This record gives sequence, C-alpha cells and structure tokens, in this order.
Amino acid sequence: MPLERALAQLLAMADATPISERETVALAAAHGRVLAEDLVAGLDLPPWPNSAMDGYAFRCADWTGTPLPVSQRIFAGQAPAPLQPGTCARIFTGAPLPAGADCVEMQENAEILGDERVRFVEPITVGQNVRPQGQETRVGELVLAAGTLLSAIELGLAASLGRAELQVARRPRVAVLSTGDELVEPGQPLGPGQIYNSNRQLLISWLTRLGCDVVDAGILPDDLDRTRARLGELREVDLILSTGGVSVGEADFLGIALREEGELALWKLAIKPGKPLTCGQFRGVPVIGLPGNPASTLVTFALLARPYLLRRLGVQDVTPLQFSVPAGFDWPRAGNRREYLRARLENGRAVIYPNQSSGVLRSAAWAQGLVEVREERTLQAGEPVVFIPLSELLG
Amino acid sequence: MPLERALAQLLAMADATPISERETVALAAAHGRVLAEDLVAGLDLPPWPNSAMDGYAFRCADWTGTPLPVSQRIFAGQAPAPLQPGTCARIFTGAPLPAGADCVEMQENAEILGDERVRFVEPITVGQNVRPQGQETRVGELVLAAGTLLSAIELGLAASLGRAELQVARRPRVAVLSTGDELVEPGQPLGPGQIYNSNRQLLISWLTRLGCDVVDAGILPDDLDRTRARLGELREVDLILSTGGVSVGEADFLGIALREEGELALWKLAIKPGKPLTCGQFRGVPVIGLPGNPASTLVTFALLARPYLLRRLGVQDVTPLQFSVPAGFDWPRAGNRREYLRARLENGRAVIYPNQSSGVLRSAAWAQGLVEVREERTLQAGEPVVFIPLSELLG
Repeated sequence: MPLERALAQLLAMADATPISERETVALAAAHGRVLAEDLVAGLDLPPWPNSAMDGYAFRCADWTGTPLPVSQRIFAGQAPAPLQPGTCARIFTGAPLPAGADCVEMQENAEILGDERVRFVEPITVGQNVRPQGQETRVGELVLAAGTLLSAIELGLAASLGRAELQVARRPRVAVLSTGDELVEPGQPLGPGQIYNSNRQLLISWLTRLGCDVVDAGILPDDLDRTRARLGELREVDLILSTGGVSVGEADFLGIALREEGELALWKLAIKPGKPLTCGQFRGVPVIGLPGNPASTLVTFALLARPYLLRRLGVQDVTPLQFSVPAGFDWPRAGNRREYLRARLENGRAVIYPNQSSGVLRSAAWAQGLVEVREERTLQAGEPVVFIPLSELLG
Repeated sequence: MPLERALAQLLAMADATPISERETVALAAAHGRVLAEDLVAGLDLPPWPNSAMDGYAFRCADWTGTPLPVSQRIFAGQAPAPLQPGTCARIFTGAPLPAGADCVEMQENAEILGDERVRFVEPITVGQNVRPQGQETRVGELVLAAGTLLSAIELGLAASLGRAELQVARRPRVAVLSTGDELVEPGQPLGPGQIYNSNRQLLISWLTRLGCDVVDAGILPDDLDRTRARLGELREVDLILSTGGVSVGEADFLGIALREEGELALWKLAIKPGKPLTCGQFRGVPVIGLPGNPASTLVTFALLARPYLLRRLGVQDVTPLQFSVPAGFDWPRAGNRREYLRARLENGRAVIYPNQSSGVLRSAAWAQGLVEVREERTLQAGEPVVFIPLSELLG
C-alpha cells in the first residue's frame, strides 16, 4: 500500500472520530496543545499610534527648520495630553503619539538648544517613525484559527491580545502497548533470548510532547484470555498504539483478539523501514499497530500515527516541512519500496548513516532528518533528494 | 557588532560558567535535558545473532535440496537449544539463532512436507536473514557523549541498552524579567498607553521547553531602589533574562543598577530585527537583556540566548540546522544589518511575510522559519537563501 493511501485512510478515520471535547487552560499550560476556538482580536495592535524610536513627536507641517519648544515628555505606559500646536513632545520608544502629532524624529537628528527648544535639521515626512494603530491586528480579525498547534509564538500572540487563557482540545488518551515475549523493561536483568524494550520509551516521549495523556499498558501477555482482558481495560482511551508482534503469525494474540471483537486490517506499506502496519479497533477503540523495529517504529509514528492524532485534534495541515537538498551519496539499486534513510547535512549535502538496518536506533540518534528516496529510483551524488528534519517530524 | 562575534563572546562566557551539577533522573523525565555522562554500551546490541524473518534456521552447509526435519521451534524471547546437525529450527523474527545455525530461510520460500520436514528450494548463503550479534553496538562503545541534548530517540537508545535512568545536567534556573511601564499582564484591563506583555509568555514557554526552571520575576519596577531589591532577590538563579527597556536612556533603572553593582555592556548587533542586546551581571549573576519588540525577542533568543544556555549545560554544537532554498521574493535594497525574515516555504521557495516590522508577532506565527539575508546583499527571486526552520531554532 502506498504511503499516501495509508495516510489518507488514517486521516479519514481521524476525521470521523474527532476529539471534540475542549477545555480552558492558562497560556503557560497550552504549549503543544491544539487551539479549539477561533482566536479573534479583541483590540487593535498596537492599540494607538506609537513611537518606533526615542526622539521627538510633532506635527510634520510644523517643521520649518525653526526650533520647536518641548511641551511634554511621554514615556511608554503614559497617556499623553494632546500636542500643543507649534510644539514638540519628547517621546520614547513604544509611547503613544499625542493627538495632533503625526511624525517622530529620532533623537540622533535633534539639536537640543539651551532654552528647552529643539531644532530638527533633517527633512521629515508624515508617519515617519510612527507605528500606526492596528498595524499588526485590527479588532475583529481572525488571528489564529481553531486547529492551530500552539507553540510559544502563538501563546505570545494570544498574550499580546490580552488573553490569559485559551480553549484547547482535551488531551488525547493513548495507551501504549508493547508486544513481544522477548521484551524486558530497562533496569531489569536480561535473561537468555531477551532484549530491552525501547519502543515504549520512544512512544511515551513522543506522545507526551504531542500533549497526550499516556496510559502505559505494558507488555502484552502471551495468552489470548489475558490479552482480551488487558485490551478490555483500555476502553476509556482514544487510541491503542501497539508496537511489534502482529507479523508473528503463530503467536499473534493481539490479532486474534481484534478479529474476534473488533476489526483488523494488515497493511503492507510500500515504505522501508516500516512495512507492516496494523489498523483496526477493539470493542470500538481504535488500534494502530506499528512495526517493532525501532527505526520502523520511528518512521511509521512520524509519518502516520502522529498525523492521525493531530488530525483527531483538529489540525488540518499535517504535512511536515521538507526541503530539497543535494544527495551526498549514491543510490545505485532502485528499491520497490520508498526508503526513509536516516541522514545528516554535511556541507549542505545529505549524507546517510552507513547501516540503515531497521533495527538500528543509533542511526536515528545520529541523524538530523530523514531522506526520502522514491521507489524505482536510483540516485547519483549531487542529485536533489527530499530531506525532512526530525524536529518537524516528531515535534 | 556582528552576530558571530556576539555569539562567540556569549559562548565563551558560558564556557567559563558551566552548570556542572548533575542529577539522576528516570528516562521519561530526561526528555529535553542534557546528558551529563558518557553513555557507554553495557551489552552488545543485539545481544546474540537473531532472525530478521519468520522462517527456518539451519546450517547453510546442510542445504542440499533434500528436506530437513524440524527439530525445534524458537519464538522471540526464548533461549534455543543448540541445533541438531542435519535439521532445521522453525524460527520467528527477533528470536535468537540456535548455536550451529548460520542462516535463515524465509517461510515464503519453504515447502512444508507432511512428515514434519521442510524443503528449501532457493539457494541460500551464510548469514542470510541473520542480524549478527553487536551489529548496532558492541560492549564498551561510546553511544552518546556527555553534552547530548536528549530527545525521544536518545532515550529509546538508552532504554535499548537497559538504562532506566540517566545522569543529566541540573535544570538551569532562569529569571524572566520584563521592563516597561507600559506592560500589563494578559487578563488584566488595559489602561491608556498600556499594552499587554507578550514576551514573558514567549520566554517562559521557550525556557520551559529547554528544561529550565523559570523564575517569573514580573515587570521591573519604575524605581531604582526597588529595581535593586528585585534583582537582589534573584541571587540564586543562573541567568537573569530581561526584555525591553535598556535602550530607553532616561528611565533605565536596570542599566543603572548593573553599572553600579555589576557590569553592563550594550551591544549594537548588526542584525535586524534585534539590534540592542545587553550583556552583563548583577552581583555576579549573569544578565542578558533582549530587545523588547517580540520579533526581536524571538530572533535574539533563538540565535543568542538559547545557544548560550545550551552551552552552559555542556552542549558543544549549538548551530541550528539550516537549508539553502531559492528565494521566492526580491530583495532590492541592500541593508547594513543582517536580516532575519519570517518566512514560509511555498512550492519549495522561501516567501516572506509582507510586514517584517519588528513589532509584528503575527509574522512569526505565520512563519515556518527564518530566512537570513546577509548585510550589503540584494536578491532576486530564484537566488539561494539560508532558511532556518523555527523548530530547529526554538526546540
């Protein structure tokens, strides 16, 4: 199945089951959450014309080269009196322009005379060094639409409009489930045939960064009844996200449970790493099963599960930012699946980790991004490839 | 002052005052922190040769086209017995290879006979479908160096090595201080001449994401004695980060306090936005003063304050990832300062927000990154420019 089709199906499923409950949170708690209201400006920004400089405000038409007396001093935060005709006001950056003034001359161009008058020698124009009222935003304008993923910048923008709280989508509740009898949690001793579970930590970190409440559902038991019981405990979650296991035909209790009491689709994605993806539900709770190799988990989480969760929260544009950069490597053998190679930029070129085996998480720690090589494609160094920064893929 | 020189001076200051205290935290709490130990592999990864496929393991030399009896079944997580000569083992993905086996044939290429024997029809080579022991990591290898900023991937890697905890640098304590009598906190009514404080929210969000303990020092009082007292309360912090104010000559109580009881350097950075930067200390506590316009705050935080803090935590490479992309705009007037324009990618080209005034935070919410235009440079659409994703600049 092509990646685009898998993503389109997941997004359609997400659109059909939006997380529409919302809650009101303080700005500082809204970082990484999704806005659930349209943020409309309740005031002009700036609220009044103000000075972009430390200097002198006056009426441009009063400038004749003759010195002007200083009739008031206006600091930021003060409400000025109207400007007396034929005078200037000492003014500081950010202070409101007095009524009657229409320009500001910077102090570097002002000659201060002994008798509290100031001479302006440079010609000046109406509006010079003035930030007009409403330059950034006008009352009633839509500033941020519902469905915006909130970073610090959006929170600063909301603060500038006087908002101390925002309505956001409630946190998705996501259960993380690992499958595989070989898995042992870090910190425990490793028995024969066992390996440490790294996917649980990957998913918990990514999901937490995405604003999810994570339910750690542990390692799936190797037994059908206990599998059913474990899944049944998760009926309050919005998604069960599992890793590993479903491709192991003869011991696939998760697959059996989904077939019996839900739905199960096994997608063979035409990407590498990341071939097998499970998509289904158990008693109505959506289930996405990612492949168990850590590099496959990374690629399928970033390209499929994360966009799915963002869309359930109302985010429309879930396409990661990507760049075209020259390849710093040859790719002589065309593959029949689209490859996502762990890559770095070196001197402006994308170089790839020598071992792209799907089990290798070190390649991802070394990498700054993923390079996409399309199916049926060969490459010579210097040809352009798509580079997707990990920071854009994983938040 | 050129940006490079300002950054070099700040990094030298950071190197001279490293935050060297460390603490041990659980993996889930280490996201966004800086590793304070060298992470050395305590085991081989994988710990033993294992199967990359569901299939059959045997000794390659035993393959003659004659069917082989199945002498054991090995699931992932099991410890296999040595392979009986002249037989094969049913094996599943991730399961250890039994001693004596040196290859795995995938089940799709196996013909199962009625008498518990299996015929392999395709030729096979030693090592085929086997993940060798230590392919990813060997015992004793340095996997992550002290000074690594920890993302989910590094935590997954630590988990795969069995580590449940890591030593990280302690959180920096950073006091956020706004200056400006015009500032009112969001949620409060706005009086004449007043505007809402957006920088406090920006800095708190960015610093929290960077793993800092933020001390909210509020808005600086408009009074020298109270300014001294407020600064004196912050003696336990690692950095006082202020915004605004220091360029307002006549009402600069922060500047006076630093000159009297510390040090004060005012740098005129050759960048736009972001000209004035304060660098100093008060009774030995480092002070960085960012300009007060939100877009200037953003650029100077991202390009100077954040790298400074990362370096104090031991991060060596603080250069953000950047890309060369074709400009989607003309830049006909060369400036004498380096410009950082709020930009997006559209059809692979960098387009810029129409209003690049330093007061405009909406441009940053619209933007996906900053485009750097060098001083004394003009541009025509299609020429390459440097594009730095905001996700790389702000974490």
